[in-house]
Formats: sequence, C-alpha cells, structure tokens
Amino acid sequence: MCRWLAYAGTPVLLDEILYKPAHSLIDQSLHSKLGVETTNGDGFGVGWYSQADVSDGGSPAVFRDIGPAWNNRNLREIAYHVRSPLFFAHVRASTGTAIQQTNCHPFRHGRWLWMHNGSITDFHRLRRDLCLAVDPALFSAIEGSTDSEVMFYLAVTFGLDQDVPRAVARMAGLVERLGKEHGVLNPLQMTIAVSDGRTLWAFRYSSHETARSLFYSSRTDAIRELHPDLDFLRGVCDQTRLVVSEPLGDLPGVWNELPEGSYTVVPSGIADYLPFIPEPLP
Amino acid sequence: MCRWLAYAGTPVLLDEILYKPAHSLIDQSLHSKLGVETTNGDGFGVGWYSQADVSDGGSPAVFRDIGPAWNNRNLREIAYHVRSPLFFAHVRASTGTAIQQTNCHPFRHGRWLWMHNGSITDFHRLRRDLCLAVDPALFSAIEGSTDSEVMFYLAVTFGLDQDVPRAVARMAGLVERLGKEHGVLNPLQMTIAVSDGRTLWAFRYSSHETARSLFYSSRTDAIRELHPDLDFLRGVCDQTRLVVSEPLGDLPGVWNELPEGSYTVVPSGIADYLPFIPEPLP
Amino acid sequence: MCRWLAYAGTPVLLDEILYKPAHSLIDQSLHSKLGVETTNGDGFGVGWYSQADVSDGGSPAVFRDIGPAWNNRNLREIAYHVRSPLFFAHVRASTGTAIQQTNCHPFRHGRWLWMHNGSITDFHRLRRDLCLAVDPALFSAIEGSTDSEVMFYLAVTFGLDQDVPRAVARMAGLVERLGKEHGVLNPLQMTIAVSDGRTLWAFRYSSHETARSLFYSSRTDAIRELHPDLDFLRGVCDQTRLVVSEPLGDLPGVWNELPEGSYTVVPSGIADYLPFIPEPLP
Amino acid sequence: MCRWLAYAGTPVLLDEILYKPAHSLIDQSLHSKLGVETTNGDGFGVGWYSQADVSDGGSPAVFRDIGPAWNNRNLREIAYHVRSPLFFAHVRASTGTAIQQTNCHPFRHGRWLWMHNGSITDFHRLRRDLCLAVDPALFSAIEGSTDSEVMFYLAVTFGLDQDVPRAVARMAGLVERLGKEHGVLNPLQMTIAVSDGRTLWAFRYSSHETARSLFYSSRTDAIRELHPDLDFLRGVCDQTRLVVSEPLGDLPGVWNELPEGSYTVVPSGIADYLPFIPEPLP
Repeated sequence: MCRWLAYAGTPVLLDEILYKPAHSLIDQSLHSKLGVETTNGDGFGVGWYSQADVSDGGSPAVFRDIGPAWNNRNLREIAYHVRSPLFFAHVRASTGTAIQQTNCHPFRHGRWLWMHNGSITDFHRLRRDLCLAVDPALFSAIEGSTDSEVMFYLAVTFGLDQDVPRAVARMAGLVERLGKEHGVLNPLQMTIAVSDGRTLWAFRYSSHETARSLFYSSRTDAIRELHPDLDFLRGVCDQTRLVVSEPLGDLPGVWNELPEGSYTVVPSGIADYLPFIPEPLP
Repeated sequence: MCRWLAYAGTPVLLDEILYKPAHSLIDQSLHSKLGVETTNGDGFGVGWYSQADVSDGGSPAVFRDIGPAWNNRNLREIAYHVRSPLFFAHVRASTGTAIQQTNCHPFRHGRWLWMHNGSITDFHRLRRDLCLAVDPALFSAIEGSTDSEVMFYLAVTFGLDQDVPRAVARMAGLVERLGKEHGVLNPLQMTIAVSDGRTLWAFRYSSHETARSLFYSSRTDAIRELHPDLDFLRGVCDQTRLVVSEPLGDLPGVWNELPEGSYTVVPSGIADYLPFIPEPLP
Repeated sequence: MCRWLAYAGTPVLLDEILYKPAHSLIDQSLHSKLGVETTNGDGFGVGWYSQADVSDGGSPAVFRDIGPAWNNRNLREIAYHVRSPLFFAHVRASTGTAIQQTNCHPFRHGRWLWMHNGSITDFHRLRRDLCLAVDPALFSAIEGSTDSEVMFYLAVTFGLDQDVPRAVARMAGLVERLGKEHGVLNPLQMTIAVSDGRTLWAFRYSSHETARSLFYSSRTDAIRELHPDLDFLRGVCDQTRLVVSEPLGDLPGVWNELPEGSYTVVPSGIADYLPFIPEPLP
Repeated sequence: MCRWLAYAGTPVLLDEILYKPAHSLIDQSLHSKLGVETTNGDGFGVGWYSQADVSDGGSPAVFRDIGPAWNNRNLREIAYHVRSPLFFAHVRASTGTAIQQTNCHPFRHGRWLWMHNGSITDFHRLRRDLCLAVDPALFSAIEGSTDSEVMFYLAVTFGLDQDVPRAVARMAGLVERLGKEHGVLNPLQMTIAVSDGRTLWAFRYSSHETARSLFYSSRTDAIRELHPDLDFLRGVCDQTRLVVSEPLGDLPGVWNELPEGSYTVVPSGIADYLPFIPEPLP
C-alpha cells in the first residue's frame, strides 16, 4: 500500500537518492510498478540521522506531511540541503485510515526510526487487543490510527532496545496469535525498516501469501565493477546499501530481492540476509 | 482551551451566527476574551443537520480543517451557502495534542454530534484506562488522540442513545473515579454540547475549581421585547437558542451564564437548566 | 493535465455524480484513462449554484483544497449534503505551477464559474502580455499563477456578461495572436466550462493538434430509452446534461465526443453543438 | 502585520534563536507585543544558508507553510537539526491576501533571500503598475499575490546584484511615485531584510507616519560585558547580530531601535546604521 526506501552508508545529499534515480521514490509516489496501488499520494515522510546524531545517540529528524510527495516543495528543499549517513523515506497510500501527519511514516521513538509497508488484516478487529499489549507507559505515545504505529510500539515493548530481530519477531508472533484468536486468516504482511542511527534492519514477512516486495542493493564494490562509470559511486564506501520497496532503476546486478521470511542488516555481516520467524508468545 | 457555539431553532444561514455578530466565534478564534488562551487557531470544525437530516434521522455533515478558522475560505463559503436548524461550530487551541482533522471538533457518530471545551487533567496518564472502558465494538472508531473524542465514545458506550444526561453523567463519573485511582486532583473540567439533530444538550461541570465559561441565550421573545429593532430576530421562533463559550456581543439581557454543575436542553422545558452530577460507576 | 465535470439539469446530490459512477471524477483523480497524466492529485475544487443562486443571480459556492480529491473527507461531506441544479468539479494535475487554492478550479467572478483543462504553450513567455490585456480594474482580482485564471479574466474583459461564445473566442484569438508574436507554435489547447448559473457553456479547441478530450451526455430521454432500468434517471428532466473530460462509465449511447473547434450549450438549443472559432483581435 | 527575524554570525542551531528566547518569534506568532496584529498565524517561513552555500554562492533553503508557526512540528524538527550562519524567519498576518506558500516569506531568487513587514497602501490599486515595472524576464517568477514579492522583484530589477541599498531605494522611490500618481497618501511602510548569504541588510522606512518597529542587537562583546553569564554568547563571534521586528526579551543593553529612514548592515561597518532615502525614478 506504500513504498519506502532506507539508505545507510556514506553521507549523501537526500536528493541523490530521493529525486535523481530514474525510478526514484518520488516517481514511485506517482507511478509505482510493483505496489498494490500505483499511486502513493496520501502523505509522506523522511527521517534522517545527522552524523552528530549517530555519534551522540541523538534523536533523528522527522519531516512528514499529508499531501503527495511529488508536489511538495519543502521536501525538495530538504532533499537539496540535508546530507545524512542514514535516512528513511516513505510515500503512503492509505486504505481508509485518516490522512494526518501522525499516520505518516517514519515513526520515531527516542533514537529509533520505524517504517512499514504492508498491513495487518482486519486491523480494526485486532486493534484494541494489540493496543492493550503495548507497554502501558507507552500507550499515550500512540498518536495516530495506523497498524504500523502500533506494530512499532509493540516492538519497543518487546525489547527493540535489546534485540531488534527478536523484538520484531515477538511483535509478529503476537499479531499472528491474535489473528488466530479472532479468526483472521493470514493476519500479517509486512516489510519493515528500523534503525537506531548506527544499524539498519529490514524485514520481509507474510503469514501466508506473498509479502510486499523488498529489495536490497548489492555491495558498492560489486556494483562499481559492473558499472565503472556510475558517477554516484565515486567516494561511496563499500558497505553503503539501499533497501527499497522497488528498484530505483533497471541496472543489472544492482538490486536483489530479499526473500520472504528473512531480514537484512546494514552494515551487513557475512550473510546478506538471515531467516525471520515470528516468535510465538507464551 | 477552545471556544464553541451551538445553535438550535429556526433554520438560518451559518454566516448569521458564525461571522456577523460583533464578537463572533471567528473573532473569538483570534481574540477570545474569556478563554484560557486568547488564540484558538489549531483547527476548527462545523457540524450541521439539514432539515432532511432532522426528519429522517440522517447523519449530520461535518467540515473540519487543521488551519485557523479566521482565514479559512472554505468555511466562509459554507457559512454563506448552508442553512441549518441545528449546528455546532468549534475553534481549537491545542495543548500539545497533534493538529489533525481527527482531533478537531465536532465529532460524529451516527446521527450524534459532540464537541467539548475543557480537559481531563493528566489525560496521558488516564488515557489507556479510559480507552479500555469504551465498548470494544467502538474502540476502532477512535481516530484521534484527544480526551474529547474518548469522552464521546464513553458517553456512547454508556447509553447516549437512551438517556443523554445519564450517559454524560456516567462518563464524568468514570473520569473522576479513574482520576482518583491515579491520584489526579480535579480530573475533569468540561463544557460539552451534544445533539441527535432534534434536541441539543449542553453541560458545564468541573471536579473542583471553576469550569470553562458557558452561556445560553434568552428566549427569543424576551430578547425581542428588550431589543425590538434587532433584524436577526424577525422570523426566528421563540424557542431558538444559542449556547456559547462566550457571549457573541454585549447586548444586555441576551446572555445568561449556565451555572457550574448544570445542563441545559434546547428546545427547553420548564426550567432553563437542570443540575448535573456525575454518576459514580459501580 | 486535469479532468473536469460540469452538470446542469434537475437538482441532484453531488455525490450521485462525483462518487457513484463507475469511472467517477474521483476515480479519474487516481486513474485517468484519457488524460495526459494518469494522476490528478494536485488540488481540486467544486463550485455549485443553489436553486436560490440561480433565481436571484447569486454568487455560487466554491470549495477548493490543495490535496488530492480522492482522500478528502470534506469533499465527501459536501457531496453527501449539497444538492444543486448546476455544478462544476475539477481535479488538477499541475505541470509545475504552485499547489495552492488560488490555482485550483473552478474560478469565480461574481455569478460566473470557470474551469479549464488544457494549456497555453510556453505560458511563462506569454503571461505578462496576457495579464496586461486584462481589464486594469480586474488585474488585482488575479490571485494565482495559472494560465486558466488569466484566460478567465480575459474572457470577463472581453464581454462574458454580454456574449459568452464571443468573449471566449476573443480570449482565444488573443492567445493565438500573442503566441504568434512570441514565436510559440500551437499556443492554445483548451477545454473550458463556464456558467452564470442558468446556462452552461463548454468549449473544445486547439490551435493545431488534438485538443484534450471532451464529452457530453445524450439527452436523458434518449438514455432512458436505451437503458430503461437506470435508477439515476428517474425524476431527472430530459434537458439534464453532463459535460466531462472523460466518460464516467461504459454505457453505450450515453457519451458523445464534442468535436474539436466546437462548443455546446446546456440547456441545449436545436443543435447539440456549434462551431467555435477564435476571433482575431484588431 | 507580520513579525520577522534575521540572524547573521557564528553558525547556530535555529532552535537557539527561534524557540528558546523568552519572547521568541514563535511566541510572537501567538502574542506579538508591538505588532499591528497580536496574532501572526497566517503562514510562516524560514530561509537559511548553509556554510557551503555561503562559500560557493549556493542558493539558500526555504521552508514555508500555510498554517501557524506555533503548532508546526516540521518547523520544530528543522530548528532542532539545522545549523546556519545566516537565516531568516517570518510569521505572517495576512490582511486578506490568500493564505498560500507563495505568499509566505522569505522569498528567494537565486542566492537572494527577502522578507518584509509593512505594506503598500491600497496595493490593489498600484499592483498592476508595479508589476509592469518588474523586468519582463522576471515577471513570470512572481508566483503569489503579495506586495512583498513584487517589491522584491522590483529590487532585483533595479540592481540588487550591484548595489543593495540603491536597488531598495529605487524600489521605494517607484512605490512613492506611483502612489502619488494614483492619489494614495503615505503609500509605503516597510521593514525589509535582504541577504545574499554573506551580508545582511535591513531597512526601516515609512512615507509619512511611523514605520513598523525594527530592532538590531548590540555587538556581542558589548552584550557579554553587560551580561557575562549568558550561555548563548559563549563561542559566538563579536560580529554576530540579530535584526528583529520586536525584541526577543527584556535584557537591558541588548536591543536598539533602528531609526526610521535608515538601514543597517551585518557584518557592520563603522556606523551601526546609515540613512535610507527613496530614490526618485526619472
């Protein structure tokens, strides 16, 4: 229902990633190829860490607005003037939930950023039980009405600060358990990005059918070998990666589909991705 | 924190009440005299029943926006072109809650309209418990993050359809009980308007200190006697009344303060107002 | 670049025309089939005459906003509650001009409504000369930066009050003359709707190549004969017509293309349409 | 009708100047003390040069929105995350002109920023002639409908790139001459800030009566002597200055009124200010 993009690596001007690519996220807001909806015009957001944020554990900046991304002049200004080593961008296609800033991604809590494409099936039936499972001390931090924000606060409740993949797995486990209890088939479809400013995690999972699409870029040194004349790659470190709902262009060897039921981490370890399995709650 | 106005009686153009009076609600949005804040520029709303709505139990129209009322051209257009026998208008001053349509008054549920000025003290501490007391079937209807909307759905939960004063009394009783449990002093200050399209109820109550101001207009025949040359009163039935956060002008004999701990009904019965006492919940 | 719809005939709820048809204007805002752009999400507007406006020459209401039409709750409220014998609706796709209310259609001047789909080629080069040709007394009424609004004030300057087709022809003549003077090829592509509340005129014209699409509905009695079970047609007078950028559905016999270089009038005369030729200015 | 603030000196986080002072510009947007209007809630803007912009002659960033500044979350995010050696901020109180981004200050042209508080009397009568005096090549750059934007493009037309005080003087001279021709008394009241990223100029002038208020801060070394414990002054160079519509606090010795008919430059020369006299056009 939405499209998103997460960047981690050598600091760049947001513009390089948000506007310049052939099939940029801004273009996807008008003409998504792989999305459930072709138009993602129901609000947008960017969240970015400055290098200072990363080093002192500071809170990232979040800029969100309720109109379409493609015609937003302030977004363009920010993209031209902000340089960041780790940022998120999201364009939204609502399926009925209110169009308001507090429903726009990314969401922020302390130093955490979170964004989501996908949905909890029949969320209106599960919403109350999911909200009750959020740490009562966090309940009043919920400002909007999306499943995505509740998923975020569940993950915070379940230990995002200690173990990101496990917190997300427990959140997914709860959604599936509650779905089962309420007779909801295939309750969860999700592609999630989450970061604390140092590390970026991205998850792709679906209870049953095909999850929303998700791609990660190849290592920069590999891309450079394939496409030696790409301007953008000059001065970009090898560990730099993009994770995106759909590829930003057609260059062969650049984009790799993240398999369902897996997650990727940037900077990456030995494996490009690891398996993701919801953790059944007691 | 806000200012509101409710009209019931002979159908009029909204403009007559919203813009024309000397100290109109639109003027109050810029220069409130009796409000806690002088500026009420954090969103606004109008809700109106057409005569057809009133006779067939139809749902009222609601127009809400997140900018100030005073510069909103669409509000002016609606005011010039909509005629209604019963309407609400509200200008908001947020105390930190998000500026979004779903936090603007009036709120609507079926044929009901609801608006509020006041606050639940330390709402962030009580919010979860209050939300839990809302009928689970209504939980997902909560779209915003204000105390006012939760109060509305509590009143619906507690039987607004059967007995309006009692449903509001039980809602207030719950707020006070939860306040006590959480150690919140003087948890409730409220001035509420609620209608089903046929009758208008307005409540003024505070747990301890002075509630927000609330005034009701005198019977039209009484005003006409005092001010025989008021254009507006021609063709307006005797039962027509306004209930307002603060008087729309200085004419003597027109505005009467609704005492704390009371409510008024339009069309009125024998008494101008009746006592309001929160009902302790079991 | 935009899509529009004009209705004239038996008063209907706006909802019947704006939301209910299979390929309604709201649907076109997301998925236009015949437009230059598939997405028309850069603002929208509706303008409507009440029956009172029509009989007393009153000014129509105009409701315009800068987000997309498809997610606008206020538009839906108005559509559910406003009944009108003559109304315009427009969804905008900007080609760079600012997203602001004053660039949204329809435009209003006194009792006149005006909306447009098309463009003046290289408008930025002709804008100054076109503005200078506007009656100096009207110059300050120009609030936005679109070609459409300038075309409107030119038509007012050239006698819209006296002779609508001629005023539009002189406006088009001026655009073509200035285009020629500035070396602009094919300066004008236009589909225009204009009304004074009693009569609706719609024009389709292009300096050279294919103009934007425009269709008018068949006489209601003819449609009724073809499709006897269409609910909507019950109680709708024979003279009722729609003029639309693209058909609202696939029913055979309902939609007729307005040929280029012609205009139609509702209520119609003997001919469905008449030729339109720009009038060279002296 | 508006309030503004311009900062030039040691790079600071916008937050230090926009939100932290006792009577900050954000506070002035709600409760102006010296303004014609107490509320300045009809849009706002900030424009800032990065240090890179200053050194390479780059274009500044501009962030403008149409709601009030006091409740805008995006403005707060930017203030917390953007550091700049030279920035403008403006809160608007419209006197009827449309509420739209293109009417919000500051205005930008190439590397220039411009903002204004004041007005051209009877602007609607002079608007056409003023627009005609703008360089035809710049005419299409005018996107909004304010006097302030036209004044800016007149100053650009009259040589802002060569000689700022003279370009402004010629602009003022033209306004006064056209005012006289149209029988407008006291046509001009202005307080203007303009910058190219290296230098800040601020002007205060009125054709006859009192101009809007304008203040400049004392040299930082002088303030430091008076108030040795002001945190903010640590690490701020002596040449740092603020020019503001009204003082941001009550500290003695900090704020100096700029006399009418004068202008100030930052970094300053020998004199704190110089006389400003409109230049009659031939």
